[in-house]
Amino acid sequence: MVAIERDILAENDRYAQANRRWLERRGVLALNLVSSPGSGKTTLLVETIRALAREMPAVVIEGDQHTTRDAERIRATGVHALQINTGKGCHLDAHMVGHALDALDSPPGSVLFIENVGNLVCPADFDLGEAHKVVVLSVTEGEDKPLKYANMFAVADLMLLNKCDLLPYLDFDVDRCIEHARRVNPGIEVVRVSARSGDGMPAWLDWVRTRRADAAQRASVALV
Amino acid sequence: MVAIERDILAENDRYAQANRRWLERRGVLALNLVSSPGSGKTTLLVETIRALAREMPAVVIEGDQHTTRDAERIRATGVHALQINTGKGCHLDAHMVGHALDALDSPPGSVLFIENVGNLVCPADFDLGEAHKVVVLSVTEGEDKPLKYANMFAVADLMLLNKCDLLPYLDFDVDRCIEHARRVNPGIEVVRVSARSGDGMPAWLDWVRTRRADAAQRASVALV
Repeated sequence: MVAIERDILAENDRYAQANRRWLERRGVLALNLVSSPGSGKTTLLVETIRALAREMPAVVIEGDQHTTRDAERIRATGVHALQINTGKGCHLDAHMVGHALDALDSPPGSVLFIENVGNLVCPADFDLGEAHKVVVLSVTEGEDKPLKYANMFAVADLMLLNKCDLLPYLDFDVDRCIEHARRVNPGIEVVRVSARSGDGMPAWLDWVRTRRADAAQRASVALV
Repeated sequence: MVAIERDILAENDRYAQANRRWLERRGVLALNLVSSPGSGKTTLLVETIRALAREMPAVVIEGDQHTTRDAERIRATGVHALQINTGKGCHLDAHMVGHALDALDSPPGSVLFIENVGNLVCPADFDLGEAHKVVVLSVTEGEDKPLKYANMFAVADLMLLNKCDLLPYLDFDVDRCIEHARRVNPGIEVVRVSARSGDGMPAWLDWVRTRRADAAQRASVALV
């Protein structure tokens, strides 16, 4: 079983490397958004795209076991979204994303948001070729999650603490949650947001802007 | 890959059948609690055990990738809890549970609560030998989850809608959520609860009492 898992991951990594090379050459910033089901990823993405669409091209890959609801919600913003239904599968893999890259043809200097299947376990192991994994944790889920799902928080570069508008109604200790995340990943950045109220969104949008400018610069893509 | 998956599931099913035979002969009611991370399963379980411990023996198997926090929370109630750390694994399997059954030695007429790894995808495919899968969905997760994670809601006999104390602060349509769950599983039962406020707990406790009495009766175990 261990050998089979190693083969699957090695094959995935080959596709991921090809995706990464293609994205880096084009100066496309790819962000892999991972979280539990119901963390508010899609709402956050819709608000992010609404805020950024005028200043940069964006495309979206939506991963879900079933339904095309999320892709439809994204398309309502006017942005191109491709839905991948994984069926019984519990994560996106780099091969699927490679096909989606062909179909989407993200323009140079754009941002590609990949919304993974809602699952704090399996997507941690599958590199898609993204520049960064962004883990979205909603404050309704409890501050112990970074310790219990340590693999995921160890591979993410940014933790977005979402649904902060609900903090007054919860027993959630933000500082303790951040301390837990840093215990498994000392370098992880943290931004507190509420996609619903808009609080904290400017810090997250600036994070995206900076990384997108870096990706474009490294590929010598001129940004308008 | 499909053949490998079939072999893994067939092997799991053999272990699950052995577990089920053992549990049924002993008159032990085994409930497999499945959900997203952060749905409030452990708090719900702690409150359930506190309410039921005086009238029936209970034991707990806790599944988590890392940490023994949940088992410690259960043990604080005085009930025997065994922690299985799955490491990179995304679900409990029947083989692990078989070993736990040996170690726990659940008494005849008891209830065995199995808290699975927080994951709405993978645990759907793995029969552990339980009498029922109980899916816990917290109302903070959104009413579309039964459609998006249809496999899980299709195999569950009961949906516990948890964290109902937060409904006043959310845009969550309870009726629509139930309609979504029944679309993938017309026979699914639904109980609304709040482990925090205690609302709805009596209906859930009665559900457990009835099924435990049935399991004991079928095994001709006299209940005290």
